[in-house]
Amino acid sequence: MNSELVVGVVSASDRAAGGVYRDEGIPALKAWLGKAIIAPAVRYEERLIPDEQPVIEAALVDLVDAKGCHLVLTTGGTGPAPRDVTPEATLAVADKVLPGFGELMRAVSLKYVPTAILSRQVAVVRRQALILNLPGQPKAIKETLDGVFAAVPYCIDLIGGPYVETDEAVVKAFRPKSAQRPRPA
Amino acid sequence: MNSELVVGVVSASDRAAGGVYRDEGIPALKAWLGKAIIAPAVRYEERLIPDEQPVIEAALVDLVDAKGCHLVLTTGGTGPAPRDVTPEATLAVADKVLPGFGELMRAVSLKYVPTAILSRQVAVVRRQALILNLPGQPKAIKETLDGVFAAVPYCIDLIGGPYVETDEAVVKAFRPKSAQRPRPA
Amino acid sequence: MNSELVVGVVSASDRAAGGVYRDEGIPALKAWLGKAIIAPAVRYEERLIPDEQPVIEAALVDLVDAKGCHLVLTTGGTGPAPRDVTPEATLAVADKVLPGFGELMRAVSLKYVPTAILSRQVAVVRRQALILNLPGQPKAIKETLDGVFAAVPYCIDLIGGPYVETDEAVVKAFRPKSAQRPRPA
Repeated sequence: MNSELVVGVVSASDRAAGGVYRDEGIPALKAWLGKAIIAPAVRYEERLIPDEQPVIEAALVDLVDAKGCHLVLTTGGTGPAPRDVTPEATLAVADKVLPGFGELMRAVSLKYVPTAILSRQVAVVRRQALILNLPGQPKAIKETLDGVFAAVPYCIDLIGGPYVETDEAVVKAFRPKSAQRPRPA
Repeated sequence: MNSELVVGVVSASDRAAGGVYRDEGIPALKAWLGKAIIAPAVRYEERLIPDEQPVIEAALVDLVDAKGCHLVLTTGGTGPAPRDVTPEATLAVADKVLPGFGELMRAVSLKYVPTAILSRQVAVVRRQALILNLPGQPKAIKETLDGVFAAVPYCIDLIGGPYVETDEAVVKAFRPKSAQRPRPA
Repeated sequence: MNSELVVGVVSASDRAAGGVYRDEGIPALKAWLGKAIIAPAVRYEERLIPDEQPVIEAALVDLVDAKGCHLVLTTGGTGPAPRDVTPEATLAVADKVLPGFGELMRAVSLKYVPTAILSRQVAVVRRQALILNLPGQPKAIKETLDGVFAAVPYCIDLIGGPYVETDEAVVKAFRPKSAQRPRPA
């Protein structure tokens, strides 16, 4: 069961899904995770889809319920414009809402740009998966993952997923002492 | 289309609407906006109404759908008391909720008073309008507008409104470089 | 009416309710309140119950509607795990939601542990009562009450409860000047 971590990476973008321009969100997510996670092995499920709420919902449900993802990261579609519907899709498939992620992501981004408060990112739990909305820009993706990922491995523990270990040079996963496992020799 | 910015200013107060005392919220909102916004011309739609949720909802719908407001600022009715129903009315007419405004407004007010956390202010988008709940006191109105307005012009851009320019001595509107327009010579 | 403050203290914990281990939440809540509140006299209503959403909801409704609590503090059940349902139960019985408490509690806890963002604590008003979710660990209970309680007495004023006075060595209750009462000589 702990032999791999299944991670869904979803880019919601009309223009990228339509081939108008190259998606930069999924590569940015995978680049960051590739550096941060040192165990277990990561298997990715990728989805490049348009900004349609039912399409995003269906992708999230498939990734969690059918593909067994432990973590799903979305990029894009969190602003105030009419086509920005990723948070609505995420909330619609949620078992539990975790407001602290959105609060911290906005607080982190606010150090860089005053318009960070326009981002409507949410985090939710559905079954065995944490679903986390991230911004669309690669720079902002890195900034927010740097800011919040320390809490992700313990969250995955609590919802029944594999024990994720991180490279502390990228981000130090935090767990209460009682939840820490010794590193194998 | 860009020749004017239509701004709704709404004071929800039983006592002010009933003539028991003079409303200070609408003058405070207009005074701040009058200093901050240098273009385009602002046309105000004013509403002084009692703290009744259906009345507030109807006012917000009329201001956005019929009067074409791009921005609606409410003052008052955001506390925990039974007659404080402005956030409920605002959420009831929302297309999208923007949690970052409420978070930042409370964080800003918390620098002044520990009871800032009792304020339940929300911001939402309905059609082409940003609706923003502000506190009731003129001093708190100024503090929170000083704290969050930098993100308002770009939000209005994103929902299809006119390009708002501010006096940087009051507040510097922030936009990503790709969204900035050169000032006319 | 002001002769006593009725405080509900609720521990939602399968293991504590089942006698598997001793509940530490309720004693921690009472110890903190016993030091902080100097007037009026406090009468406690205690509930040690399992992590079942309908059971928690029923306890909250009974404490507020039948027992007349002015303040209800819960401990435990706010994490992301499947059995953590205290926020859902609290929201289900709410008249009004006060997002500022959860935001500040997480911000306070974040100074101690990065996993503070996993906590889904909420605060709501139901009738004459403020209901506040607190963490499960005694250390975290103290940290978050230290961080937010300054706003609680004025909130209780606003929803019609007795005038609560605190020991300023523990926490200084904040009220606007117009709401302050002189101490009896």
